[in-house]
Amino acid sequence: MLFFRNDYGQSCIQDIVDEFTAIQDQSFVGYGEDTISLKAKELIQSKIPDHQVDIQFISGGTLTNQTVIKSILRPFEAVISCDTGHIATHETGAIEATGHKVITVNNVNGKLTPDLIQKTFDEHMLTYEHLVYPKLVYISNATEFGTVYTRDELFSIHEKCQELGLYLYIDGARLGAALTSGIDYGLNDIASWADVFYIGGTKNGAMMGEAVVIVNDALKPFFRFCMKQNGAMMAKGWMLGVQFLGLFKNDAFFTCAKHANRYASQIQDSLFALKYPVLMKSDTNQIFPVVTKSEYDYLKDKVDFEIWEESGDSLVIRFVTSWHTSKEEVDQLIEFLKQAKQLSV
Amino acid sequence: MLFFRNDYGQSCIQDIVDEFTAIQDQSFVGYGEDTISLKAKELIQSKIPDHQVDIQFISGGTLTNQTVIKSILRPFEAVISCDTGHIATHETGAIEATGHKVITVNNVNGKLTPDLIQKTFDEHMLTYEHLVYPKLVYISNATEFGTVYTRDELFSIHEKCQELGLYLYIDGARLGAALTSGIDYGLNDIASWADVFYIGGTKNGAMMGEAVVIVNDALKPFFRFCMKQNGAMMAKGWMLGVQFLGLFKNDAFFTCAKHANRYASQIQDSLFALKYPVLMKSDTNQIFPVVTKSEYDYLKDKVDFEIWEESGDSLVIRFVTSWHTSKEEVDQLIEFLKQAKQLSV
Amino acid sequence: MLFFRNDYGQSCIQDIVDEFTAIQDQSFVGYGEDTISLKAKELIQSKIPDHQVDIQFISGGTLTNQTVIKSILRPFEAVISCDTGHIATHETGAIEATGHKVITVNNVNGKLTPDLIQKTFDEHMLTYEHLVYPKLVYISNATEFGTVYTRDELFSIHEKCQELGLYLYIDGARLGAALTSGIDYGLNDIASWADVFYIGGTKNGAMMGEAVVIVNDALKPFFRFCMKQNGAMMAKGWMLGVQFLGLFKNDAFFTCAKHANRYASQIQDSLFALKYPVLMKSDTNQIFPVVTKSEYDYLKDKVDFEIWEESGDSLVIRFVTSWHTSKEEVDQLIEFLKQAKQLSV
Amino acid sequence: MLFFRNDYGQSCIQDIVDEFTAIQDQSFVGYGEDTISLKAKELIQSKIPDHQVDIQFISGGTLTNQTVIKSILRPFEAVISCDTGHIATHETGAIEATGHKVITVNNVNGKLTPDLIQKTFDEHMLTYEHLVYPKLVYISNATEFGTVYTRDELFSIHEKCQELGLYLYIDGARLGAALTSGIDYGLNDIASWADVFYIGGTKNGAMMGEAVVIVNDALKPFFRFCMKQNGAMMAKGWMLGVQFLGLFKNDAFFTCAKHANRYASQIQDSLFALKYPVLMKSDTNQIFPVVTKSEYDYLKDKVDFEIWEESGDSLVIRFVTSWHTSKEEVDQLIEFLKQAKQLSV
Repeated sequence: MLFFRNDYGQSCIQDIVDEFTAIQDQSFVGYGEDTISLKAKELIQSKIPDHQVDIQFISGGTLTNQTVIKSILRPFEAVISCDTGHIATHETGAIEATGHKVITVNNVNGKLTPDLIQKTFDEHMLTYEHLVYPKLVYISNATEFGTVYTRDELFSIHEKCQELGLYLYIDGARLGAALTSGIDYGLNDIASWADVFYIGGTKNGAMMGEAVVIVNDALKPFFRFCMKQNGAMMAKGWMLGVQFLGLFKNDAFFTCAKHANRYASQIQDSLFALKYPVLMKSDTNQIFPVVTKSEYDYLKDKVDFEIWEESGDSLVIRFVTSWHTSKEEVDQLIEFLKQAKQLSV
Repeated sequence: MLFFRNDYGQSCIQDIVDEFTAIQDQSFVGYGEDTISLKAKELIQSKIPDHQVDIQFISGGTLTNQTVIKSILRPFEAVISCDTGHIATHETGAIEATGHKVITVNNVNGKLTPDLIQKTFDEHMLTYEHLVYPKLVYISNATEFGTVYTRDELFSIHEKCQELGLYLYIDGARLGAALTSGIDYGLNDIASWADVFYIGGTKNGAMMGEAVVIVNDALKPFFRFCMKQNGAMMAKGWMLGVQFLGLFKNDAFFTCAKHANRYASQIQDSLFALKYPVLMKSDTNQIFPVVTKSEYDYLKDKVDFEIWEESGDSLVIRFVTSWHTSKEEVDQLIEFLKQAKQLSV
Repeated sequence: MLFFRNDYGQSCIQDIVDEFTAIQDQSFVGYGEDTISLKAKELIQSKIPDHQVDIQFISGGTLTNQTVIKSILRPFEAVISCDTGHIATHETGAIEATGHKVITVNNVNGKLTPDLIQKTFDEHMLTYEHLVYPKLVYISNATEFGTVYTRDELFSIHEKCQELGLYLYIDGARLGAALTSGIDYGLNDIASWADVFYIGGTKNGAMMGEAVVIVNDALKPFFRFCMKQNGAMMAKGWMLGVQFLGLFKNDAFFTCAKHANRYASQIQDSLFALKYPVLMKSDTNQIFPVVTKSEYDYLKDKVDFEIWEESGDSLVIRFVTSWHTSKEEVDQLIEFLKQAKQLSV
Repeated sequence: MLFFRNDYGQSCIQDIVDEFTAIQDQSFVGYGEDTISLKAKELIQSKIPDHQVDIQFISGGTLTNQTVIKSILRPFEAVISCDTGHIATHETGAIEATGHKVITVNNVNGKLTPDLIQKTFDEHMLTYEHLVYPKLVYISNATEFGTVYTRDELFSIHEKCQELGLYLYIDGARLGAALTSGIDYGLNDIASWADVFYIGGTKNGAMMGEAVVIVNDALKPFFRFCMKQNGAMMAKGWMLGVQFLGLFKNDAFFTCAKHANRYASQIQDSLFALKYPVLMKSDTNQIFPVVTKSEYDYLKDKVDFEIWEESGDSLVIRFVTSWHTSKEEVDQLIEFLKQAKQLSV
């Protein structure tokens, strides 16, 4: 069965296996204060020359979002997110579990906008202490729909946050996909817009692991206390260091993401050519075709994928490519799509 | 200045002053285990002959909602509410502060419906443990818009909750207003539909205080632990007992609410006669006229009221009547409304 | 039956009844922003001439402690308290419920000392982020044993907190008792030592209510958000204003506490004269005699009091005096104690 | 430098590397629902033939303790632990962060006893709802001092918990060390005494990972919701499955622990022979010698170890052995200890 279910369906890239093998017989101090983690942090810092950042590694995305957001907010403060934001949907209330409301607003192509932020802020200032105080803006880049913020969009959100005294946090579970989607900004720019962001490893070739990057000096102190309290500090911390050493030593982080994007783009182009509608045009490695029930029936035994939405006779499904996706798999998928379309005509 | 700002703008009804005065020189045990509280509870229990209920008194509505909801839910469980529900808006994230998500759905005239509950439940079952588990339904009766659930509506929500294994909690901040609005059900019926509800004192003539009524046996044990932990157990508990003794000994609870409803109805009828639009037809003591900027300017120095919404040149404002509202005040308000309309024509 | 069970067994002093009666027919804005609360705050501020303080009224002690402590601490920070501190014992884990550890240390006559604070702080710095960060010191004055901190003791705790960068919070549930126990400091001094403290009304003549006094400017912003979120903001806020207007307009706060202290002292002197041991010499209105089983049996049907500890054949019991205690009651109690002693000899 | 700092200082055993390598090119479903995790669970279940258990894998100990305890307790319930229990000390208040008090009692050789549990329970029942309700007993086996509970001790704690209606949770961070220390019970017995326990991988040869074993049927439902909400559900769940496959396929879990215990025992015997005092006689892989300042100075540049306590001129230090410890290292350490003793004489 072809695997287009997600981008975290295989263990890890060879670069990481190599780093892991190289240190198999060495001893390290625990809790992320080892030399491997240090090297990995230096590599990431070197990509962000204009900012002096703090970097910490955490094993997964939900734990990262929870730890970061809890560390930033006072009890009565809340975070603004799209209704499609990962923290607003697929984290089982992890943010609310820390005592904070997630204020959701309707997304625009999976994105937040400065206007939506302003409107939400204004509404909350009206009756003041009878409502939560929105203090943090959460966006994902790439978004949960595979779209990517433009340079202008990110800059204007940053400006709006500065104006209103809000922090900006970017969930980078698929930041690699965003940065290799043809946009004109990089990690160093992200650091100039966000107060905190994370660089996702799990969905871009690592066994596990996300790199939290804290840019704003006010948010740096005591972050490791928050990690430890939240169960987010690994005893064998170098196992996370190994992931980012493997991802950044030879820029596998970027080549893997580019690889996935290219194949996704090829699939999307084929969908257009085959006259499949899509939920939304994607810029990255997640593609959302709309298929009929009979097309779905044809595909479902040949390809492993997720159903995104069902409505009446049509379904939105999701194909995801990754560092592991091969040319053969993509060609085969396109062939299946062709046949499905012919059958259903 | 005429006072139509809210229904909690004066201290309390004379019946309560009398009860308070009567015990001024007596000594009591603390924490709500006194004889006054007991008597008040017996009076309330007597209105609910078909159910053996547990009753506890708490000083205010937000504290009550927080304590009840926290006592019911396991960490990963959530509460479903209208987007206009008090817990979803004007409680500064008090529910989220206890670790629980408030799942908001669009209201229908300020109300939830069985269909909305079913739809929300289904959506959450789709990806199961990646989303919170909706376990509790929260409704307000009367609603935040002054509308009242019919017997059929409440029964069908109750049935839907039973079917899906959800608890039903009714916020009765203005339950008096609902029960005296001409509907065909009473406290005993409420107890047959809700697992827990509260009888609001603060907005119906008491100095403070809400009476939590726990009907479902499974939710009774250890509720007082939750109260104490939440700061919701008053040392001089009989001060709350006094409120409900005053409200229920001679049924002031009902006569006060009826009094407020009658005057509100009179105001609403005048609004219709004067061709003022309203946001929504109210069944109880909150009335939401839509006024022009110039009508507003005329009224604002003569009447104390709240602005509910502003949009362009028109404003939704709110008049609230209470046990304290007098015929003279109502007549004067109607006169002002007449003049405002004439000026603006 | 004589009532020496506690100092919150009767409704309230006449001064408060008078204030309450005076405003019975007036209308007020809600949530503590009324003119009565304002007047009460001005009276309290006038007792603290050297500091510009923020004052808020909350209905009870547990709710006050919870709201204040939650408002001060970041998630990984903890509060240091005596093992006998109210927050460490009789609040059903209210502080832990907000996510914070209460670090308990053995008390010295119900008190904390600078040395104990230093030792606790040092221990927690050893392995740093693997332990909570102690950021707040909690003391009660008068203590739960009826003892009172001296001027030197308070000053040195203040100095230690300053040195270590800790906040100092004083639980003043019985601050009136402390301030009228013959010590050489007053409210203005308390404000120069504590970052936040509260002036207890419930246990000194009010129906309910504690006045939170925030001295440290850094802790003032957004406190009302914390109140609202915690259910600690009363709709009819002037009902709390009335309490403190009654307590401070004619200094009833001090005369009531002095009244209670004087009678307690008289009881304690009699205990000494009658050769009853005491658990600890008290400076205020709580007295802890040690009685035999037979003395207890004699007293228990004549006097309403609490058992503090039981060990073998002897019991520590507690007598509490209040603003309501009369000369006749005290004389009668002493007579009973005399008879109990004679019977048991 | 010799490494005796801890038992989590090297990546992992070869059996795990082999399992990892074997699946490097395969695709899996996420979140622990893969075939590798299933196989690992079946292996563990096979060691517990008398009980049908639920098993879940979590990346580390603090996250495991937090998730399990939060999943069991209602808001007002608390957990009883030794003062030396890991949750009471080195987890930065992770349990309190979930809203629950950790009631600490003085340890007896690092252990809890039925008497201590009974005494704590009784104290909390005295004033009932004014104190937290102790509902869960937490013990570590092996303990934080390297001691091991006997069969009788565990059985009697189990019986006491049953009698009082408490749950028993065993922290098995070093359960392997306990089970290979010469005691007469195994995993199947542990399952007959505990409601929940975990089998520690991190400190016994795995890269990371603990296996939570839920025995009590009442505690099984919805545990995965708690995991997800707590950030404790790994996307690439099979990476944790791989750990326990490697540990249990050929019983490396037991041989590794035995290996570590044997060397620790050899070191402890030498300490006795060399007349070094120890803090407490250990049964497992943690050894706590007491050394003089000059002995410490001699050792500290040759051996990597932790200081446990300092008092006056003597220090308690800790040597930990692991699956990775070699005969050469142990011999060398003993030689250094000999020389240190000679120098200091």
